[in-house]
This record gives sequence, structure tokens and C-alpha cells, in this order.
Amino acid sequence: MIVPDHCGAVLTIDLDAVAANYRLLADKSGKAICAAVVKADAYGLGMAKLVPALAAAGCGNFFVATIDEGIELRNVLADVSIYVLNGPAPDSGPVFAECRLTPVLNSPWNIEAWAAYCNGRGNPLPAVIHIDTGMSRLGLSLRELEDLTAKPERLASVKLAAVMSHLACADEPGHEMNRRQLTSFRRALTRLPKTATSMANSSGIFLGADYHFDMTRPGAALYGISPIKDGPNPMAQVVRLQAEILQIRDVDTPLTVGYGATCQVGRGGRIATVAAGYADGYLRSLSNCGCGFIGNYQAPVIGRVSMDLITLDVSKIPHDAARPGVMVDLIGPSQPVDEVARRAGTIGYEILTGLGARYRRIYSGGKA
Amino acid sequence: MIVPDHCGAVLTIDLDAVAANYRLLADKSGKAICAAVVKADAYGLGMAKLVPALAAAGCGNFFVATIDEGIELRNVLADVSIYVLNGPAPDSGPVFAECRLTPVLNSPWNIEAWAAYCNGRGNPLPAVIHIDTGMSRLGLSLRELEDLTAKPERLASVKLAAVMSHLACADEPGHEMNRRQLTSFRRALTRLPKTATSMANSSGIFLGADYHFDMTRPGAALYGISPIKDGPNPMAQVVRLQAEILQIRDVDTPLTVGYGATCQVGRGGRIATVAAGYADGYLRSLSNCGCGFIGNYQAPVIGRVSMDLITLDVSKIPHDAARPGVMVDLIGPSQPVDEVARRAGTIGYEILTGLGARYRRIYSGGKA
Repeated sequence: MIVPDHCGAVLTIDLDAVAANYRLLADKSGKAICAAVVKADAYGLGMAKLVPALAAAGCGNFFVATIDEGIELRNVLADVSIYVLNGPAPDSGPVFAECRLTPVLNSPWNIEAWAAYCNGRGNPLPAVIHIDTGMSRLGLSLRELEDLTAKPERLASVKLAAVMSHLACADEPGHEMNRRQLTSFRRALTRLPKTATSMANSSGIFLGADYHFDMTRPGAALYGISPIKDGPNPMAQVVRLQAEILQIRDVDTPLTVGYGATCQVGRGGRIATVAAGYADGYLRSLSNCGCGFIGNYQAPVIGRVSMDLITLDVSKIPHDAARPGVMVDLIGPSQPVDEVARRAGTIGYEILTGLGARYRRIYSGGKA
Repeated sequence: MIVPDHCGAVLTIDLDAVAANYRLLADKSGKAICAAVVKADAYGLGMAKLVPALAAAGCGNFFVATIDEGIELRNVLADVSIYVLNGPAPDSGPVFAECRLTPVLNSPWNIEAWAAYCNGRGNPLPAVIHIDTGMSRLGLSLRELEDLTAKPERLASVKLAAVMSHLACADEPGHEMNRRQLTSFRRALTRLPKTATSMANSSGIFLGADYHFDMTRPGAALYGISPIKDGPNPMAQVVRLQAEILQIRDVDTPLTVGYGATCQVGRGGRIATVAAGYADGYLRSLSNCGCGFIGNYQAPVIGRVSMDLITLDVSKIPHDAARPGVMVDLIGPSQPVDEVARRAGTIGYEILTGLGARYRRIYSGGKA
């Protein structure tokens, strides 16, 4: 295959930073086992590359969203526990069994399907039961839990591996939901057979030991997103995104920039056109408000983000710094993913999972 | 490989609709040749599947953004013309030559690089010159064009295949930029050797024959995005996105939904949790404002869009219609891509290019 030397944009993912983040989160999890959430292709960063680094750092429990992700992960790591958050469908039992995937049972419908499958094969297989305590997304309602405990035979053919819940507002330590969900989860646990328990996501780990239970389930913080809304980010940055300056435009006549002509530049200005756009996950909401860094020089995005390109105002940057062929930092040391997200009006998670397929990806570190 | 029968979300792409859209655009292009813009993996829909359908519909000229995309396209279609919009880098000449890719020369820097490469190999290779008439993104400024025409020897070793420009406001037929860019382009053409010419994108085709020149370059409209801001969309819909209801929640106690507890639901409400989220390109900006369709019933998104899931209010939908396992239309006949984009505060282009990798993709039609 022909591979050009040249590449418009480069995404560098620091596997050592991922491992360091895992170790910090495991430490902060106290006595709890620290799992890793690697759904959505490890938050867009590449499950196949990240999970060996996490396993080498000591992680033996992984959560994915879908069965397809579970299969992919099993093909990478043969000997870890894999939990599938979105649960089993009625027909998916054999695939779960063959790949040794543990389903999270979110609803009476899930429990029925899994029990029927286990019954049919004649031996119970492990599953996690998910109790909803306030997300109202997946998990048994407290009413459904009552129904279940009233008919314990419905769980007879299921091997209960753990009971879990999920926090809705853990990034706001003062939010009343946290304490309310904790109380609700504890109450639910008294109604079920004694087993392993799990509640905390990344931010939940930082809510303190009450929230740790037997297993924590960080995702975002592994990838450098701050688990703490106010205050410094304790996590190492994992991602650096750089894109090339394709062209520099010296403005000799006042002009408008980009689609819809939303930005004017006067005589004497300089514009850099850079090889990344919203098809690469550089969100269109960064139009006229994102920025890049050329070394330590900040260059504001001017005009609308287009599909494959952005335009930066480099008027105040020395000519030898801002020239064709130079790489501009769009996410990196000067501008962590959370800051890019803030400018885009979203959260770091969406920036990471949106990173497109067109970058050349470089994985640094990760050797044993 | 194990492939589960079951799948949380399905993206169906209608190749016959793409072919019909191409034929309509070719017809509307009058005497001009109609090319197809297939950058960003054919706007996220899958270049490898779409370009054979476009070629079968009569398209022989394709535009991509990057050299990598050009290589990929050449591996699919051996006998078409392929133009690379982002231009050549200094070291990429041999790859362009080997894959018979035609670079678009956007800057003096590009022209110099291409001329040097052609000089080195001893024979001129075709290239397109891009004149900027108001996008201020890629393309020679009028000043740079003057410099070039003052030193025509700089083009001596380049085989001029075409001259192009790009419209900034073509979706607004009344915008003064259109006429200004047209005038500017015509003036520029008088300064260059006579060759093929190209200006119109999808919307530009609908601005009338003045804008057609020798070749039109639609992208978005091929994929069902309306080229006309006001008035009915003349294009056939290409994309249908469906995601499965994983769980139905009957609300017996008032509750809040999702991260940040941004939405309240009262007693008697019903919530459907559906297997698609922002990691699938269902933008987080659709939180509390998107909607799905279950048959003809509309179900508003409530709460925040999360990474792998959304929650819909199905309180008013009959129980036998909204139940686990049912597929919800997120983009489709009842809600075209432009409407989803409007709700998300963006454009259809970003919705399409953001469609994630986790869907099962079904290509319908497309047989010769």
C-alpha cells in the first residue's frame, strides 16, 4: 500500500499518561478494585491500543457499552473480565457465553432474557444487576426491584456477579443528588443477595470512600478529562491534536472569511488555513471562538469551521513561526481537551469521542 | 468472527437515492460536467460504497480533500479523474503521480512544489489552479494571481487541467457575495491560459447557468442535504438512522433524567432509553431538544444526550408501539437530516460527517 510521508493532521495518544491516570484512580479508589470504562472505542482513542496499556497498569475489569465492543475487546485481551453496559438482547446469549462477556441486566426484560438463556443451557452464567437510583436511563427502578425481590425465583438461574448503580451529578460534589443516590443504592442493596457492589464513575471516586463500594468504574479521567469541576485537573493529559498550516494569506484588501462571510479581516491581517475541520471532530460550534497554538502563540479561529479546514488569525504571530507546513496545536499542552470543550459549549467527552478517522494516529509510550 | 444478530443501531444508506441525486444535479448543471465531492469518506457515508454508485450514474470526476482520501478512492475506481482539494505537500509528488491524482494548487507554495516536482521528473503533470474570490480559505489571492501572471514561466512545467474557485454564500441566492465572486472569478480567468473552469458547489448549481462554467462540484446535495435554504428540498433522502429501545421506564415517583438532572418527569410518564448517543454522532446539543419517531409518533429527547444513550419521552405513545426492541427513527422520512441539524444548531453536513463507527451499516439499492 502506498503511504504518503505527508499528513495534514496528527493525533498523538500518550499511553504512559493513560497508565499513570489508571494508577492514580486506582489509588484514589482506596480498597475498591478499579475497573476501566473503554466503551466508544475507549472514548475515541482506540480500544485496541489502550486496553493493553491499562491491563499492563494492573486493570483486570473493563466496561463496554455494546456487545460488538465486548467482542472486539475479548479479541484483544483473553483473560480480563468484560462487562456490557447496554445489556443482553433476547437472542444474544450464545455470543455472551462464547466470548465470556458479562451482561449488565438493566430491566426486567433483560433479566427475563438472561434467565431464560441460562435456564436453556442448564447452568447459571454471571451477570450484573443495575439499579437505577436517579439517572433514569438504564437500570431497575425501585418498584421493579421490589417486584424482583418478591419473586426471587426469577434470579434462580442467574449467577449474580455484582450490583451496580450510576451517578448523575458526581461532577458537582455539592449536588444533593449524590447523597440521595447513595442512600437509595444502599437501601436497594439490602434487598438483594450479598455480592460485589459498584457505583462510582471518574468523578464519583473523588466524592470519597462512601462512594467507592467494591469496584469503581472510571472512564473520562483515564483519558485526561478532569473529574473535578472546580480546581486543578489531577489527571495527566493524554491527547495532542496537531494540524498543518496549508496556506498563509496576507490580506492586502479587507475581506471576509469562510462560509456565510461571518468574519471580516482588515488590510495587514494574516490568515492561516489549517488542515482540520468538523469532519475531523473539530466541532463547528468552535466557529469564531476556538483557537490554536503555534508554539506559545495563540491563534483564534476566525470564520466558520468548515468540513476539512479551519482558518486562524495569525496577524500577531511572527512570519517564521506561522508558515505553511508548520503544525498547529488544536488540543495539547497549552489547551487541554476540557478547555476546547468549554469553548465549543460541550464536554471533553464529546470532543474525544468525536475525533475523526482522518488523523494519522501516533501512540507514544506503552512499552512494558 | 462472531457476529451477533442483534444490533443497537442501524444506519441505512440508499445508493439509489445518491444516484438519483447525482442525475438531478447533472441535469441542473446544464452543459457543465457534473463532478462529485466525496471527501470525508463521502460525507461520512462510506466512500467505498458510494463512489461505484456515483460512477454507475455517470460520474467520472471526483473531488477529495486529502491525499490519503485520493489513494483510497483510486483503489476503488481505476478509471476516473480524482482531484485533491487540499493540494500537494513538497514531498508528495510521487504519490500523486503513482495514483494519478490531480492536485489543486492553492498557493504560490503549492505551485512551486508541483512545478519543482514536474521539472524533476521531466514532464508536466496536470494540476488545477484555485483562485480565491471570497472564501479566504484556500486559493491564490488576486495579488498572488498577478504575481503569477507576471512570471508565467512558473507555470511552464505544470499542465493546467482547470481553474477553479469556491463560493462562500451560495446557499443564500440573494447574497451580494455570489455576484461579486462571479465577477472576480471571470476577471481572474482572463489572466490565465484558456482551460476548463469550475466554481459551483451544490447550492451554486441552483444559482443558474452563469455559475456552472465547465464543471460543477456538488457534495452535500448528493447526500440529501437541501441545496436551497428556503423552499422544498429537491433532493432524495439518502440516510435513515434507527436505534433500538433498550428499556422503557414507567414513572411511578417524579424523577429527573440523565446527567446533571436537567429534566423532570412526573408520575405517569414513560421514558424510553435508546441505544445511540454522542459517540455515535447524535450531537450532545440535541439534549432536551432533539426528537425521535416511532412510526408516526414523535418522541422528544428529554435530559442530556449521553455517550451511548438517549432518553425519549414516550408518555403519549401507545405501549405496544413504544416497547423494548422497537427501532426509533432518529434521521429518516419523518425527520430529514436538515431538520436534525436545525434542532442541533448546526448544518446537515456536520450531522452526516459525525455519524459514528458503531452503527451497523446497510447499503440499499445500487445494483446496476
